Amino acid sequence: MKSYRKELLITSPKRRQILNITDQVDGAVRESCIQEGLVLVNAMHITASVFINDDESGLHSDFEKWLEKLAPEKPYDQYAHNGAEDNADAHLKRTIMGREVVVAITKGMLDFGPWEQIFYGEFDGKRKKRVLIKVIGK
Amino acid sequence: MKSYRKELLITSPKRRQILNITDQVDGAVRESCIQEGLVLVNAMHITASVFINDDESGLHSDFEKWLEKLAPEKPYDQYAHNGAEDNADAHLKRTIMGREVVVAITKGMLDFGPWEQIFYGEFDGKRKKRVLIKVIGK
Amino acid sequence: MKSYRKELLITSPKRRQILNITDQVDGAVRESCIQEGLVLVNAMHITASVFINDDESGLHSDFEKWLEKLAPEKPYDQYAHNGAEDNADAHLKRTIMGREVVVAITKGMLDFGPWEQIFYGEFDGKRKKRVLIKVIGK
Repeated sequence: MKSYRKELLITSPKRRQILNITDQVDGAVRESCIQEGLVLVNAMHITASVFINDDESGLHSDFEKWLEKLAPEKPYDQYAHNGAEDNADAHLKRTIMGREVVVAITKGMLDFGPWEQIFYGEFDGKRKKRVLIKVIGK
Repeated sequence: MKSYRKELLITSPKRRQILNITDQVDGAVRESCIQEGLVLVNAMHITASVFINDDESGLHSDFEKWLEKLAPEKPYDQYAHNGAEDNADAHLKRTIMGREVVVAITKGMLDFGPWEQIFYGEFDGKRKKRVLIKVIGK
Repeated sequence: MKSYRKELLITSPKRRQILNITDQVDGAVRESCIQEGLVLVNAMHITASVFINDDESGLHSDFEKWLEKLAPEKPYDQYAHNGAEDNADAHLKRTIMGREVVVAITKGMLDFGPWEQIFYGEFDGKRKKRVLIKVIGK
């Protein structure tokens, strides 16, 4: 069994942003030289998400609007977590979107359906964040 | 380390449907001859879900009603994604339900609690869809 | 490839509770003697969750309030699943929070970001429940 580890560094200039990281994950899988296995991709921060969906800007604005409806940022004092911090909504939004994805690797490549793309979802940005890529297989 | 890959083909006659795929996943695990490991089961489409819950028809109708409340199909023009398409709600519903499950394999079998069953959740059906099963282990 | 399996037994005295199980998962990873791999941690019951977030009591009370808004426990008769049972809301709450997490193992340890902690989320307690920990790697 082989394993490979890589971190992506991400700094979003905005509080909330959706970034396509498929190419970086694909690059890490190639660097691993693993032909058959699994790759775990997870946010290392609890106010961010890694998820798989469509790379379509209309859908991404729908996600923003929808998450604000389900877990609004303001008023800040509606959340017990806020006080020293103001990011309770980001913890909830990330819960909806998910922390991680696990993707199959087949013949050395991400084993994807036709429209699957991997995204980093930032919900409390303007600071350095990390994404972990861990590949295991043979 | 051994690996095994299988696709399930699914065509739902309805826009939304929940299908129990536990037997197919169990069959793939047996075909893999893997005794100890993990199986990843994921929708290969971004308007469908693979999730684990109870095989109870009342609960499945509760899911339908609940997802329609959290991410209603209509009016279509409430979503920026809709226009050429009308399935923005399906992308959101699948986000709530999740893309994938990872299940332990122990002694050659799905290592499940008493009521765990694997479901395919279709939210934009009436066309061919695929589910990926990837098994790794020894 | 090596594998290791362990069950945690949990009995929550309350209907809903969030319990930090990071130390138990960390202990299982050490017992496995696996240096590089993945650990799957999942609820074995369909009204409970395993998730990763912040160990902050204000946030945990925000989760309780938020989940009650998205999937209220009462009135019981709003759910088709309820009748012999009264826990339909628990199935929905667990869906939001997620069944499982997969965490990388690097140099024999949980490969975590600075604030990541693993929690068991109980949504239908007052009875014995189990969490499965499955480690694979080398």
